[in-house]
Amino acid sequence: MVTATRPRIAAFELDGTARYGLVAQGGIIDLTPDFGALYPGLKEVIEAGALPKLVAAGDGRAPTLSEQDVRFLIPLANPEKLICIGVNFPDRNAEYKDGTQDAKAFPSIFIRFPRSFVGHGENLVRPPESPQLDYEGEVAIVIGKGGRRIPQDAAYDHIAALTLCNEGTIRDWVRHAKFNVTQGKNWDRSGSIGPWLVPFEDAAQLDDIALETRVNGEVRQQDRTGRMMYDFRYIVSYVSTFTTLVPGDVIVCGTPTGAGARFDPPIWLKPGDVIEVEAEGIGILRNGVEDEA
Amino acid sequence: MVTATRPRIAAFELDGTARYGLVAQGGIIDLTPDFGALYPGLKEVIEAGALPKLVAAGDGRAPTLSEQDVRFLIPLANPEKLICIGVNFPDRNAEYKDGTQDAKAFPSIFIRFPRSFVGHGENLVRPPESPQLDYEGEVAIVIGKGGRRIPQDAAYDHIAALTLCNEGTIRDWVRHAKFNVTQGKNWDRSGSIGPWLVPFEDAAQLDDIALETRVNGEVRQQDRTGRMMYDFRYIVSYVSTFTTLVPGDVIVCGTPTGAGARFDPPIWLKPGDVIEVEAEGIGILRNGVEDEA
Repeated sequence: MVTATRPRIAAFELDGTARYGLVAQGGIIDLTPDFGALYPGLKEVIEAGALPKLVAAGDGRAPTLSEQDVRFLIPLANPEKLICIGVNFPDRNAEYKDGTQDAKAFPSIFIRFPRSFVGHGENLVRPPESPQLDYEGEVAIVIGKGGRRIPQDAAYDHIAALTLCNEGTIRDWVRHAKFNVTQGKNWDRSGSIGPWLVPFEDAAQLDDIALETRVNGEVRQQDRTGRMMYDFRYIVSYVSTFTTLVPGDVIVCGTPTGAGARFDPPIWLKPGDVIEVEAEGIGILRNGVEDEA
Repeated sequence: MVTATRPRIAAFELDGTARYGLVAQGGIIDLTPDFGALYPGLKEVIEAGALPKLVAAGDGRAPTLSEQDVRFLIPLANPEKLICIGVNFPDRNAEYKDGTQDAKAFPSIFIRFPRSFVGHGENLVRPPESPQLDYEGEVAIVIGKGGRRIPQDAAYDHIAALTLCNEGTIRDWVRHAKFNVTQGKNWDRSGSIGPWLVPFEDAAQLDDIALETRVNGEVRQQDRTGRMMYDFRYIVSYVSTFTTLVPGDVIVCGTPTGAGARFDPPIWLKPGDVIEVEAEGIGILRNGVEDEA
């Protein structure tokens, strides 16, 4: 997979305080001393359209921290909206063995709370209520310019940055109710977002990039965003039809076929597993698994 | 319907600024000068467990504002979670003519964004994309004490206050997707919450209260919370199984049969209609309807 050299801006915790900075070769350039007073977090950076300013400020500076010194946080701690698109790759619709073969004309949409996610490098948490912790590797977009009823051909102008999501799911709880997957998608610390934000500047960063999920090094999901049933432009346009998008909103855009539920018998995540979600030009989001303490 | 005389704490806008106060006979006692520096909004009041302090501070004071002077806001502008319970009264399950007759063992849950709601007295907005704006009158609870895996017998200790919700819905968009009602439930300004918070102090305020929705004075929904399939204690316990509840979280607890979609042909809301959601001891949430400008 091609590794691009675009800037990478991460939120992290150091000595108990939340910070942000540029992730460079060999470590992290902490930009909190430069911008923390003006922009307390990356949400405020996005609201101010200041990602390029951060990148410029870090240019040529030597890293002050190693990645091992910090705990990565989810890039946006408290977005106004964290929206997920379900069933968005070919074959994935068939994974829902519910007798309906056809995809609907519109995407399935659900919402997650930020507390259902951990940052890069943290363990996903398997709760005592279910052994069915499952992975879903996805590309996530971060809205930079808000809007309502955004036309598809303008959609990319509204995206500030890209990141990755392991949209971790407690699979049996997704089916608790007749409608809506909410309770299978919102277990505390059951998924992850990160490792960082990559500024979005070029359509080629999204149009047809490779997306892959590995568990303990074994490839489980592998597809390209060019095969998405609802592409990024459509998603931004459709979602903004009913709700006003604002800077910092996160949209998680759907997973390829190959989740653990797909296997017969299903293969659920267990403590000790390492899950990697990788997308071309964005990076690798890596998480372990632990049982809830 | 019995009108109780419990205290009522409202959030409102006056001269363009957000404020809060006690709604008394004859008007509003603005408590922002007393507490605004300490608690910027009712979320912070709830977090501090300070509702009783507000009530005490207003005791015996004369109103300084009339209800006509202010614009009511939704009581909690930005809760961490705004969770809705679907299909929670007898007969309502049958409204879903999808061939499945049986309710599931667990409640249906979906999430709304605060921007999908307006305050008491404001108009709901019918968008140009659909004429199917529908009402759903519901009781909403506000979490005062956070927790995870709250036992049912302790659930009421975690509720700080009650309010009402017109869980306004764009009915055809609820069915856009195979799963999940998200996009029918999140149109900007399509529902309402209010008119105020009533502190929760006595189980009788929730256990079996009358709940009614009227459109232009005609009763459309009428039931009692004692008939809910999933009662308030169960809801708090079940939701807190997967997500940590925090102070200020709002849970909207389901609507009786009789939404406009129930009629044959369906009766949708239209500009000029007045919808009133009333529950015993809480109050009347009243809203008009307008076409989106």
